[in-house]
Amino acid sequence: MNELKDFFTDASARVNAELEWLISSDGPGPPRLRDAIRWSLFGGGKRFRPALLFAVGRTLGVPDEKLLRTAAAIEMIHTYSLIHDDLPSMDDDDLRRGRETCHKKYGEATAILAGDALQVLAFQAIAEDETIPPATRTTLIRDLSRAAVRMVVGQQLDLESEGRALGLSEIEHIHVNKTGALIAFSAVAGGIIADASDDTVKAVSDYAEGLGLLFQITDDLLDVTASTEDLGKTAGKDQAAGKATYPSVLGVEATRMKIDEVRGRTVEVLGKLPADTSLLRSIADFLVYRGT
Amino acid sequence: MNELKDFFTDASARVNAELEWLISSDGPGPPRLRDAIRWSLFGGGKRFRPALLFAVGRTLGVPDEKLLRTAAAIEMIHTYSLIHDDLPSMDDDDLRRGRETCHKKYGEATAILAGDALQVLAFQAIAEDETIPPATRTTLIRDLSRAAVRMVVGQQLDLESEGRALGLSEIEHIHVNKTGALIAFSAVAGGIIADASDDTVKAVSDYAEGLGLLFQITDDLLDVTASTEDLGKTAGKDQAAGKATYPSVLGVEATRMKIDEVRGRTVEVLGKLPADTSLLRSIADFLVYRGT
Repeated sequence: MNELKDFFTDASARVNAELEWLISSDGPGPPRLRDAIRWSLFGGGKRFRPALLFAVGRTLGVPDEKLLRTAAAIEMIHTYSLIHDDLPSMDDDDLRRGRETCHKKYGEATAILAGDALQVLAFQAIAEDETIPPATRTTLIRDLSRAAVRMVVGQQLDLESEGRALGLSEIEHIHVNKTGALIAFSAVAGGIIADASDDTVKAVSDYAEGLGLLFQITDDLLDVTASTEDLGKTAGKDQAAGKATYPSVLGVEATRMKIDEVRGRTVEVLGKLPADTSLLRSIADFLVYRGT
Repeated sequence: MNELKDFFTDASARVNAELEWLISSDGPGPPRLRDAIRWSLFGGGKRFRPALLFAVGRTLGVPDEKLLRTAAAIEMIHTYSLIHDDLPSMDDDDLRRGRETCHKKYGEATAILAGDALQVLAFQAIAEDETIPPATRTTLIRDLSRAAVRMVVGQQLDLESEGRALGLSEIEHIHVNKTGALIAFSAVAGGIIADASDDTVKAVSDYAEGLGLLFQITDDLLDVTASTEDLGKTAGKDQAAGKATYPSVLGVEATRMKIDEVRGRTVEVLGKLPADTSLLRSIADFLVYRGT
């Protein structure tokens, strides 16, 4: 696991440097808006999605410099969605990654605008990425926009589901959109930038779908088993809100079995990739590990 | 003026058909989100920005089918900004285009998500536009994203200015970002799709900058001189909020003189275009006319 930890640390440092360059503290525009964006963007996120892009890209032989902008864009979209999801009219969360949410710190109006700005800055970052051809940028923007639409759809479905009893397929439908779509894009983008064959992109996509599911199930499990301090966000919140989660429907033990099953098929699909996939395999294992 | 009226009616019908195709009432996703998007998107907007794109595009010889997607994208960005600007934590507006604002009708959470979805759907629409080459799409997305960032900046500056006494240059700085940037893009996009020379794009950009200013000054003037019924939104709202506007700083008469001056230089720049610019000239006149 130490190699993987080094990989995550390195990927995080690289995407942070790119984000710092794109949205520097002394850049143009109203300081309050910039501060609000930076507050959430540099709030201690694990950079899992950018790391996944690096992992897939490197596995397929892409040099890092062609991955940096897209990695930054993915983290901007992720951060925008967290800012808006935390708003009082949405999930009404005061705490995120161990500190105040954007609207608690900067007020609702600025938080909404910070999210709006981050979403569009993500598309700008890719559109201006001169390390990759325009046709590749267009494909990335197309797929990223489709993922971002699915995130909104997932959040809307999630809001509409509160207080209702959901079946497992409904829960998965929400997760596949709300969380899975951007994780899938993070992996698939590596294939797009590598200009990989359709078969390879399909295998990466299947792998990413499994990862997305693993991510959500372990997240649900952590909400039940971990403390607020460990999580850096309010623990037990899903339960308190009466939200349907894997543990609430299946129970904790069956949720752990589900994790094993999903891990199995996620790792299996890697056999179809024409490359050394040990890094991608250990990322799946890492997700399983964090949930136990 | 009848020819111009026909032009606006035709442009509006074309962009509405494209929007209806892109976001149809029986499309996928949660119906409530779709209804909220359509409520604001088909709420009786005049489609001034798409019409401007058609006008510049046609002036430079671009066939309509290459303009439709970008026209729809522009209107989606415009509508998203209206939905978010109307929110309680922002301008707190109950009325827009003569009917309930999105959050009054569908609640705050859905309104925020409807805006988020519209912003990203705009970029998706251009990324998927197969009538124009990928490099053109990339340039359009780059410039549209820059304009959308400036709209957020303008809205933030506008919020921060409330209750403060502003000078005219500060007011113009807000307007150039909040309103001017997307109007400028609407015109410049016609030049980009036409693959026009740098000189031509520069002339179109100067023309659009003048139009944007005309648009804002006449809007400010209408807030003072027109009734709520005529406007379809709450009249006198700027005054009531203590917002700095052209009439509040210059007075009504000097505002009218300013309109004449800006019209003069806006129309003058059209002489640099290698085409019949009568349509573009009459659009400038239309803006002057609506303010009187």
